[in-house]
Amino acid sequence: MPPNYRVYILKLDHRPERDKRVTMHTALVARAFGSQSFYLSGICDNNIKSNLSGVTQQWGGEIEFSCINNPVKFSKKWKEGGGEIIHLTMYGLQVDDVIDDIRSSLKDKLVIIGGPKVDPIYYELADYNVAIGNQPHSEIAALAIFLDRLFKGRELYLEFSGGTVRIIPSPRGKRVERKKEH
Amino acid sequence: MPPNYRVYILKLDHRPERDKRVTMHTALVARAFGSQSFYLSGICDNNIKSNLSGVTQQWGGEIEFSCINNPVKFSKKWKEGGGEIIHLTMYGLQVDDVIDDIRSSLKDKLVIIGGPKVDPIYYELADYNVAIGNQPHSEIAALAIFLDRLFKGRELYLEFSGGTVRIIPSPRGKRVERKKEH
Repeated sequence: MPPNYRVYILKLDHRPERDKRVTMHTALVARAFGSQSFYLSGICDNNIKSNLSGVTQQWGGEIEFSCINNPVKFSKKWKEGGGEIIHLTMYGLQVDDVIDDIRSSLKDKLVIIGGPKVDPIYYELADYNVAIGNQPHSEIAALAIFLDRLFKGRELYLEFSGGTVRIIPSPRGKRVERKKEH
Repeated sequence: MPPNYRVYILKLDHRPERDKRVTMHTALVARAFGSQSFYLSGICDNNIKSNLSGVTQQWGGEIEFSCINNPVKFSKKWKEGGGEIIHLTMYGLQVDDVIDDIRSSLKDKLVIIGGPKVDPIYYELADYNVAIGNQPHSEIAALAIFLDRLFKGRELYLEFSGGTVRIIPSPRGKRVERKKEH
C-alpha cells in the first residue's frame, strides 16, 4: 500500500570535486528507497543527473532531479505549499520518538540533508529535526535508516517499472534477468 | 543486552584518492552502529585510521582499525577460527529472509563490503550473501541497514564511554554537553 504522501530529498551544499561520490550514493539511496525527487543545492552537477538517469534506464523506475539555486527560499515555498520538512541532523530528536507522527501526517515530505555547515535557519524551518542516533556517522546511512523507518522496511521490495535488468536474489553468485522488450 | 557475538567490518579494495570519503563514512557507520573493528584492504590508508581515532577521542568508544594485506587469506582464517562471514551484495538474499538465522548464530561475524569488482571467491566464502534490497544504492546504506536489522534498532542508543562531548537530543538547534574529566 503506497503512502498518501510523497517524499522528496534535498541535499544541501554540494561541491562536485569533494562530494561527487557521496552525493551519488545519497541520490541512489533516494531512488532505491522510494523517493520522488532528488534536489541538489550548492554547485549544480549534471554528472549526478546523468548517472542517476543511467541507473533508472538500466534498473527502472523514475526519479526527478533538479538543481536548486536558493534552497532556503525553496524550503519556505515548500512549507507555504502545504508540505512539511524533515531535517536530518545528529543533533535532532531520535527517529524512533518522532517517526510515528511523521508517518501519520499526510503532508508531502521534504527531507533535508545538510553539508558540513548547515545554515541554522533549517533547524527553524524544519517541522522535525531528526537524528539517526546521536553519534557522527553518514548522511547516506541516515537517509537510508530514516526512509526504512518511514516505510517500515517495505521499500526493500519496491518494484521498478521499465529498465532492462532485474536481480533474482541468490544465495551465491549473481543472477540477473534481462527484461523482455514490450 | 549485548549480543553474544562481535561484529567486524572488512571493506575491500580501498583506493584513497577515489574512496576516502566513502570509506570514512563506512568506518563511521561501523563505529556508530556498534562494530568491534574496521578492517581495510586495498591501499592502506592511515588517514582513515587517524580520522576514526579523532572521532573516538571526541565522541567516545573504541573501534580497532587495521589494514589487511591479503583479505582472501584473512577471510579463510576467519572461518577456520570459527567465525562466520556475511557478504553484503545487491545480488544476495533479502536481508529479512536471513537476518533471524544470522542473529541467532553465536559466531563472531565478519561483514564484508565489496568494491566495484568483487572477487567471486567472496560469494563462496560467505555463509550469507545478503542484499539490502536488490537495487543498486550504497554500501554505506547497506551496512547501516544490515546492522540496524541485526541489532533491532538498539544500536541507535549505544552509550560510548570516554570522549569529551555528548549530544542532548533536541527539537531545534544543537545542544552539546561537555563531559566532565574524571
